[in-house]
Amino acid sequence: MTAIGFLAGVLTTACWVPQLLRSWRTRSTKDFSWLYLIVISAGVALWAVYGVWQADAAVIAANVATLCFLLFLIGLKLTERRREVAA
Amino acid sequence: MTAIGFLAGVLTTACWVPQLLRSWRTRSTKDFSWLYLIVISAGVALWAVYGVWQADAAVIAANVATLCFLLFLIGLKLTERRREVAA
Repeated sequence: MTAIGFLAGVLTTACWVPQLLRSWRTRSTKDFSWLYLIVISAGVALWAVYGVWQADAAVIAANVATLCFLLFLIGLKLTERRREVAA
Repeated sequence: MTAIGFLAGVLTTACWVPQLLRSWRTRSTKDFSWLYLIVISAGVALWAVYGVWQADAAVIAANVATLCFLLFLIGLKLTERRREVAA
């Protein structure tokens, strides 16, 4: 049954990839508000902590991967803001 | 520690609400591709199944709530498509 958890994790993580590629290609993260990114990152980080506490590899893996994507998006958004301030 | 799981669930579910309200207000679900909706719905449904198997209330609650949001969005997208076909 752990396979179900890993498959669920792959699906809910994979669906971030098209969005990530679009943001990277367009160098625009306007689709994501700061509030949205902070709330979902906090939630995903807490899920990872919960997974560690439950010693649940599927929950840990999915949420650590998603957190990496989110931190990448936050990084893109920060550089975008610096470009706007500099312009 | 279950509280951490529920808090994580509230955060990762709550961040769907602004998007849902925007889609409802604008009657437009163009932000979501069918592929995205299907992949994330399948993933969230599998997480709910995984939660049932693990008897993990936090995982079940968060993913059932998110699945309800997603089904609502899919419903909106279907009615949008019918309107376009009828026009």
